[in-house]
Amino acid sequence: MLIVMDHNATEEQVKAVQKAVEVMGLEAKPIPGSERTAIGVLGNQGYVDDATIRELPGVRECIHVSKPYKLVSRDFHPESTVVEAAGVRFGDGQRPVVIAGPCSIENEKQMLDAARQVKAAGGQVLRGGAFKPRTGPHSFQGLGVEGLKLLRQAGDAEGLPVITEVMRIDQLEAVCRHADILQIGARNMQNFDLLKEAGRSGFPVLLKRGMSATIEEFLAAAEYLLAEGNERVILCERGIRTFERATRNTLDLSVVPLIRQMSHLPIIVDPSHATGKRPLVPVMAKAALVAGAHGIMVEVHPEPEKALCDGAQSLSGEGFASLMGEVEGLLKYLGY
Amino acid sequence: MLIVMDHNATEEQVKAVQKAVEVMGLEAKPIPGSERTAIGVLGNQGYVDDATIRELPGVRECIHVSKPYKLVSRDFHPESTVVEAAGVRFGDGQRPVVIAGPCSIENEKQMLDAARQVKAAGGQVLRGGAFKPRTGPHSFQGLGVEGLKLLRQAGDAEGLPVITEVMRIDQLEAVCRHADILQIGARNMQNFDLLKEAGRSGFPVLLKRGMSATIEEFLAAAEYLLAEGNERVILCERGIRTFERATRNTLDLSVVPLIRQMSHLPIIVDPSHATGKRPLVPVMAKAALVAGAHGIMVEVHPEPEKALCDGAQSLSGEGFASLMGEVEGLLKYLGY
Amino acid sequence: MLIVMDHNATEEQVKAVQKAVEVMGLEAKPIPGSERTAIGVLGNQGYVDDATIRELPGVRECIHVSKPYKLVSRDFHPESTVVEAAGVRFGDGQRPVVIAGPCSIENEKQMLDAARQVKAAGGQVLRGGAFKPRTGPHSFQGLGVEGLKLLRQAGDAEGLPVITEVMRIDQLEAVCRHADILQIGARNMQNFDLLKEAGRSGFPVLLKRGMSATIEEFLAAAEYLLAEGNERVILCERGIRTFERATRNTLDLSVVPLIRQMSHLPIIVDPSHATGKRPLVPVMAKAALVAGAHGIMVEVHPEPEKALCDGAQSLSGEGFASLMGEVEGLLKYLGY
Amino acid sequence: MLIVMDHNATEEQVKAVQKAVEVMGLEAKPIPGSERTAIGVLGNQGYVDDATIRELPGVRECIHVSKPYKLVSRDFHPESTVVEAAGVRFGDGQRPVVIAGPCSIENEKQMLDAARQVKAAGGQVLRGGAFKPRTGPHSFQGLGVEGLKLLRQAGDAEGLPVITEVMRIDQLEAVCRHADILQIGARNMQNFDLLKEAGRSGFPVLLKRGMSATIEEFLAAAEYLLAEGNERVILCERGIRTFERATRNTLDLSVVPLIRQMSHLPIIVDPSHATGKRPLVPVMAKAALVAGAHGIMVEVHPEPEKALCDGAQSLSGEGFASLMGEVEGLLKYLGY
Repeated sequence: MLIVMDHNATEEQVKAVQKAVEVMGLEAKPIPGSERTAIGVLGNQGYVDDATIRELPGVRECIHVSKPYKLVSRDFHPESTVVEAAGVRFGDGQRPVVIAGPCSIENEKQMLDAARQVKAAGGQVLRGGAFKPRTGPHSFQGLGVEGLKLLRQAGDAEGLPVITEVMRIDQLEAVCRHADILQIGARNMQNFDLLKEAGRSGFPVLLKRGMSATIEEFLAAAEYLLAEGNERVILCERGIRTFERATRNTLDLSVVPLIRQMSHLPIIVDPSHATGKRPLVPVMAKAALVAGAHGIMVEVHPEPEKALCDGAQSLSGEGFASLMGEVEGLLKYLGY
Repeated sequence: MLIVMDHNATEEQVKAVQKAVEVMGLEAKPIPGSERTAIGVLGNQGYVDDATIRELPGVRECIHVSKPYKLVSRDFHPESTVVEAAGVRFGDGQRPVVIAGPCSIENEKQMLDAARQVKAAGGQVLRGGAFKPRTGPHSFQGLGVEGLKLLRQAGDAEGLPVITEVMRIDQLEAVCRHADILQIGARNMQNFDLLKEAGRSGFPVLLKRGMSATIEEFLAAAEYLLAEGNERVILCERGIRTFERATRNTLDLSVVPLIRQMSHLPIIVDPSHATGKRPLVPVMAKAALVAGAHGIMVEVHPEPEKALCDGAQSLSGEGFASLMGEVEGLLKYLGY
Repeated sequence: MLIVMDHNATEEQVKAVQKAVEVMGLEAKPIPGSERTAIGVLGNQGYVDDATIRELPGVRECIHVSKPYKLVSRDFHPESTVVEAAGVRFGDGQRPVVIAGPCSIENEKQMLDAARQVKAAGGQVLRGGAFKPRTGPHSFQGLGVEGLKLLRQAGDAEGLPVITEVMRIDQLEAVCRHADILQIGARNMQNFDLLKEAGRSGFPVLLKRGMSATIEEFLAAAEYLLAEGNERVILCERGIRTFERATRNTLDLSVVPLIRQMSHLPIIVDPSHATGKRPLVPVMAKAALVAGAHGIMVEVHPEPEKALCDGAQSLSGEGFASLMGEVEGLLKYLGY
Repeated sequence: MLIVMDHNATEEQVKAVQKAVEVMGLEAKPIPGSERTAIGVLGNQGYVDDATIRELPGVRECIHVSKPYKLVSRDFHPESTVVEAAGVRFGDGQRPVVIAGPCSIENEKQMLDAARQVKAAGGQVLRGGAFKPRTGPHSFQGLGVEGLKLLRQAGDAEGLPVITEVMRIDQLEAVCRHADILQIGARNMQNFDLLKEAGRSGFPVLLKRGMSATIEEFLAAAEYLLAEGNERVILCERGIRTFERATRNTLDLSVVPLIRQMSHLPIIVDPSHATGKRPLVPVMAKAALVAGAHGIMVEVHPEPEKALCDGAQSLSGEGFASLMGEVEGLLKYLGY
């Protein structure tokens, strides 16, 4: 930590700060400058709580050098992590993974059709939501456990591992019984209790970035999972909230190369939720792969115009097959 | 709903849209314009899902007139709601309420001291967190149920009702046993399952606006509580996330008069989390009252410089007493 | 400046950075920590360009302690500045100033009526736009120099000093001939050439915060004016752009006490542009004064429903008189 | 335009609105709904000013269907525009264009070296700034007209057309004398007078999106250029300001396919300003091309570590050559 003093802080104030740092068991090293004095703090094993310092007279600012995460950081874990889930591998050196399926599970036929289309076109993981977070209480809220069974059945029929969102702790057991990968959605990225329990489950977890989460907060959320001993974590960028509302969210694609630098965990992209517009999905899916994503997650529905949720951003089976043809060519170009 | 067609949409496309609307059991009324045709949709009882329409050829945009909430809306419930909780009343015509106390419950002495300071200065409700949402897993996470007991004890010692945050459904029972008002935090504003259960509890709920929630989403979240038959809901503006990071969040104070127009529910303001800076808290607390807030919630800690959480934004007991003196004068000026 | 090295930076890398700092004529002071080494940079007279450092191997981050402004900073100029303009005084210890008038100057009668209403209700400065920045080219663009004359005439008729926006350098001469205070609008806050010329004019300048300007950038823009020797600068908060579109902008009121801490310059608030909604203007105007604003600027139009620009956020003469009655009472309460 | 009435608006209020619409020379068509009445407005030739309507009793909202632009819209001009500038062609069906060069022109040697590197690696247009917008007045402000000459000389030496930013109207003549394409920067996107004059110049214009401009505002700004009869307009996405500060701006890449839908104008991407970080530039440049950009603009400096401006985001000549090798392969894959 670096403590920056006011331009006109007195020598006594500087000494008082030094003393307060030493009371915390740390070392204080003043760095006098031409305009103001700064004080370096040494000896800490991680993030220092600056509450006792920040308010002392003459202190202008406390600048943290340590971050609120460590286990997820490439700085402390230089080697890339490859996450294996039900035979599918996410990470450096692996062929990028395509996860596809409907936003919400609606009925048996819909899921079987979707699974068939996903499989036929070359998708590797089947998605589908049984518990749906909806802005208002008057919208369709998902089929619950019944939906989980339909998802499993459809996945088994086509030999596809399945992923589904878990929204609350008491759903964890049921979700773990039926799914291969747990998804934690954007709205729950900072539902820290859910993160802890998901971490303890030992299941691979796909963690979506919160709508207004900084990269630092995103990584700190993943740290909750790793802190429970679960290293099978896949990050997912799905768009952030900005002033621009022409797209549903703003896809922050630069996060892909940036997180690959900062963390050893794999990162994938969800262009469906990011853009909210079907015609943009294929082109942004391909851009994500070129940006270095370890996979993509796209919404596919056998009949998008009848979807109970997110129809406007879902590809039809045909649209998905066409995208996969293009992805095939792109991955070949990228060397996979 | 209004369906706007492309400038060069054909007559057949317009007819196909009309038909699709009628299939939904609604009426379609074309409005030809000089530049393009629009189609008014009539007969719906609330929000219409536009998925089947939005993607038809020639459709440019679907504009919703209905909102994803109704019970919270002043449009359908013109009379202001006064929420009564443990003898304290929030709402129009009531003297604004001051909720105060530490961010997190740390130990018995701290809580008893805080309660004494809050009571002495004229605060009406005691706050304190037993379950703490923290960005990183390596920070203090709260005392849990033990903390709830200390909060209750301190409240009882001074005759103050108490409020505390509930973060997960399985904490609800314990929180309801010890607290008078439930708080749902910004990170959980769209934890819809928690909202439903809190709604069912019958307890008064203070609902904080999510960090990146629009007013529409904020009201739709409150709708979840009312949809369970619980009308004792207090809204709380606590700052939103914007590009400006000089304050912890950006206090969106205009929301106070706006929500008073749009909803019949009371709304209070938390200047501590909004600004994150102690010297700004008193002045913004007073601005909030002038803006029409039905109350304020401020962090008070007997020893802010030793606080385990949010010390930099907490007032000392002395600082709080001084603020309350000013609030007293301001409320007199405002006619209370 | 503080240079933070990677966790696993080598001793050679640290030495190379030290050397690069010394080449710049500055002193480098390593601060070894338990997790990583940081290097303090001493001896600079202001902001250091870190381009040569940031990219050296092993460097993780450069943290700046100096700011891109100095003249506007309270740190270097502790005493508050009172700006005097045509007999009106803005700043600490002065009664807050009310600037009012129509968004755009439309005709003689409108301006004379507006001036009369502003004067009668107690406004001290008359505003009106002759050059209008409009989002699209097909909207009314203002009366130009003809408008300036009407503004001057209306001001003279009522004995009110006048303020108007200057949008381009070649308008400066005409504006200086007719107006008492120059306004630089939000869209031009970083039109640096215009700032320089306005600074050189010697006229008092009201500088509006850019729609997406941080406080640091806002103060740096004001620094351009002071760097030309012009200390008569009044800052103006008018709302920032955020994800929330229920109001035209998000009024960032906390900026008022914050800027009063950081700078010695006066700061006023424009609740009309900030909210864009007439019913919110009076309440936010009063909140601004309680937050410590040195003045407010409100749009007043004799016939808002016929305004060529911003009618929806303009008060009528009657509405303004009513607001001024409330402001009168509030200022008395505040001790003016 | 659609006028939405309050739930409990009276019949008289509806009639008053109808009358007000008719006074404007337009037709009003009521659309009674189950919850509220809406009124369609017909007969307008473009955007309707709703000021007289919005404030009538019982009116809840005015929803605009027309946009503040028309000439730039694909809706009214379905065929894609190819912009030709000094022999280089931007647009559909053309090989994407690479613009490269230093942020600011520093001296003759730097520009000649940069031009040689750009040309050798296959860049088609040389960029360089003579007038620099800098946040603070104490930074390097550019060489001015002297710089323009150095840019021209370097372009001529390598047979490259040149582009440079114009910041104020009185620079236009000099810039037009020395450059082939005018650049209007993000900070000037709504400097409407500059847009008009640039439009009148007849020169091709590269218009950068403002830091907080919506797509609608971006297109409306371009409309200013086309309204002056200048159709040679190239749009440029360069990142927007959001809460995320880990990158300099947030590259909003989805805007590329979206603008290709909405407008007939070509759009390119500047990954250097968008990310602000050299290691992210090449990967985001390639992602932009896959997203459908008609070109990219990248900062290249012979000695980035000595650059007077933006060194941290500039590629070296070597780095640029390496990127161009990858771009070559990518364009081949894309069919160019």
